[in-house]
Amino acid sequence: MKRTHSGSSGRGELALLGEIRQRAASAASRGQSGGIRLGIGDDCALLAPRRGEELAVTTDLSIEGQHFRLEWHQPEAVGHRVLARGLSDLAAMGARPVGAFLSLGLPRELTVPAGRQRAARSRSWVQRLLDGLLALAEAHSTPLAGGDLAESSVAVADIVLVGAVPRGRALLRSGAKPGDLLYVTGALGGAVASLACLENLANTKPGRANPPRIPKKLAAKLAPHLYPQPRIAQGLWLQRRGVASAAIDLSDGISSDLAHICDESGVAAEVDASALPIHVGATLTQALHGGEDYELLFTAPATAKLPRAIAGVEITKIGRIVKTRAGRPTLTLISAQGAKPLEPQGWEHFA
Amino acid sequence: MKRTHSGSSGRGELALLGEIRQRAASAASRGQSGGIRLGIGDDCALLAPRRGEELAVTTDLSIEGQHFRLEWHQPEAVGHRVLARGLSDLAAMGARPVGAFLSLGLPRELTVPAGRQRAARSRSWVQRLLDGLLALAEAHSTPLAGGDLAESSVAVADIVLVGAVPRGRALLRSGAKPGDLLYVTGALGGAVASLACLENLANTKPGRANPPRIPKKLAAKLAPHLYPQPRIAQGLWLQRRGVASAAIDLSDGISSDLAHICDESGVAAEVDASALPIHVGATLTQALHGGEDYELLFTAPATAKLPRAIAGVEITKIGRIVKTRAGRPTLTLISAQGAKPLEPQGWEHFA
Repeated sequence: MKRTHSGSSGRGELALLGEIRQRAASAASRGQSGGIRLGIGDDCALLAPRRGEELAVTTDLSIEGQHFRLEWHQPEAVGHRVLARGLSDLAAMGARPVGAFLSLGLPRELTVPAGRQRAARSRSWVQRLLDGLLALAEAHSTPLAGGDLAESSVAVADIVLVGAVPRGRALLRSGAKPGDLLYVTGALGGAVASLACLENLANTKPGRANPPRIPKKLAAKLAPHLYPQPRIAQGLWLQRRGVASAAIDLSDGISSDLAHICDESGVAAEVDASALPIHVGATLTQALHGGEDYELLFTAPATAKLPRAIAGVEITKIGRIVKTRAGRPTLTLISAQGAKPLEPQGWEHFA
Repeated sequence: MKRTHSGSSGRGELALLGEIRQRAASAASRGQSGGIRLGIGDDCALLAPRRGEELAVTTDLSIEGQHFRLEWHQPEAVGHRVLARGLSDLAAMGARPVGAFLSLGLPRELTVPAGRQRAARSRSWVQRLLDGLLALAEAHSTPLAGGDLAESSVAVADIVLVGAVPRGRALLRSGAKPGDLLYVTGALGGAVASLACLENLANTKPGRANPPRIPKKLAAKLAPHLYPQPRIAQGLWLQRRGVASAAIDLSDGISSDLAHICDESGVAAEVDASALPIHVGATLTQALHGGEDYELLFTAPATAKLPRAIAGVEITKIGRIVKTRAGRPTLTLISAQGAKPLEPQGWEHFA
């Protein structure tokens, strides 16, 4: 972390940087600094991969009003979701996390305790964001190794994840072959279904930066949206066993993300509607097109033996890879009503 | 680059992603893909450091209204400055660039050609930003290896630079020792002096996203602010010769950045006012406190022999490292008027 501009001096940013540095160092002292030779406090962090490893790097931008809302999301959930997006990209490559970098642009009011709660013990929005982010980071042994901080009229968080994977062993989007079978981890559609539930809850209590407290009985129902679990252990398992021919994480929904695998691999795919592991409370449409489930979608040769679950998360066969053919859509949904094209319906900015 | 959210479909973002991917691939085919095993188009990029190297990683956030202004800065200059900030951090570590990652949050109007110029040949703000960024990237053999894209009410650009340096050889802030001498590359204060000049020019022609054209006779005068040159070659030279005991890039001004070296090294420093290489048109105050010069500030043992210039850029001895002592300020400015404390006056957000 470092300062970013020239002008007049003060204490706000340095105090926040100091706190972040201290919390990152404290996490590192608990054994999370595997590949980090030098963390926050210099011009760059230094990462030391092991011999024979290459590094996987991903960045994910989260913007207030686009990816989260101050009036809907508790800051801890924002922090969790920011990091989960990046970790999920590492999972999709079969990489082990080495470190995270966080660039934060924040309106000033989010860096001080909220108006009504200026007691010494109360915490600012950004401190609570860090609580959520660092809890998930600790769960996946991912030290916060650096970042940047600036003032902004809207809250912005760009997360960078660096992971390591043995050279030539990363799971790519481009390796699927006709005849391969198609699998997903976990259940689908839960994130978008629970987002709808959160929206209902939030609408009854409007107000900027004053999201609803989540009643205990709703916590589990809202978890798929608020606290998605990146499938790091499952991605590592697939990479180490060498069974997956291609993989992607479900950030935009099967209809979009499976199309990416097909485009990059030069193949087509069939999805069996009846086989889809639909999340409790979600619909088939949500399972096909709902984004942000952060499950893994992967392909494997028909001869590969896959267990029913990997590290406690179910694995479900949902279809197969086929050859592209003139006049055949890239994605086909097969159900009791017959076969029909499955069109990508993921979000696109600036559309 | 990848999409970031779920919802409805369209063409704007994918078209922009396609263009970025094509331009990045075209740069790579010109020989810029040294350490990049896999670039834009999968969940992560894959970087392969050479044996015995460690990786240097830095992120720098640039936000409209804080780091640039649509009504002051041509988009090409914004793109150049965004990348220059990151490259300068690599230079300060003595690292060679391996790849860059760019996360862009953009208002929709910046992704389409400006109103009056909707001719097929006219270019959008973001295309022109990429022109400036990719030109500097090519000059430093730095491929664009990935990033993210999202809609935002203010323009935001987070740049990530990954570099490589032989293990244990990076230039750190923490190695300065009493007796070491203090050096800078190039001239100081030019960036803040030319910013003042740009401000005068811009004030006469207000209007959002309509920055003044720079008259040819002013281009050289404004270059220190608009097109700062990261000192990659000089940082690499220092690292390879092993002569520098500590280094930092001057992003916040000597009074701030030298204090960082002193803090991290546990030392104090004296600066000779009469020795400072002040940029033509700049003042002593601007040379001491003006940010964004992106020159290197480094220390070396008194026995080290340094040339007058490295790769065409002058090297100037400006002071020395001394022991910390109770009652003595961390930084002292020595001039004909005697010695006085040099207080950090760099910018701090949220102050």
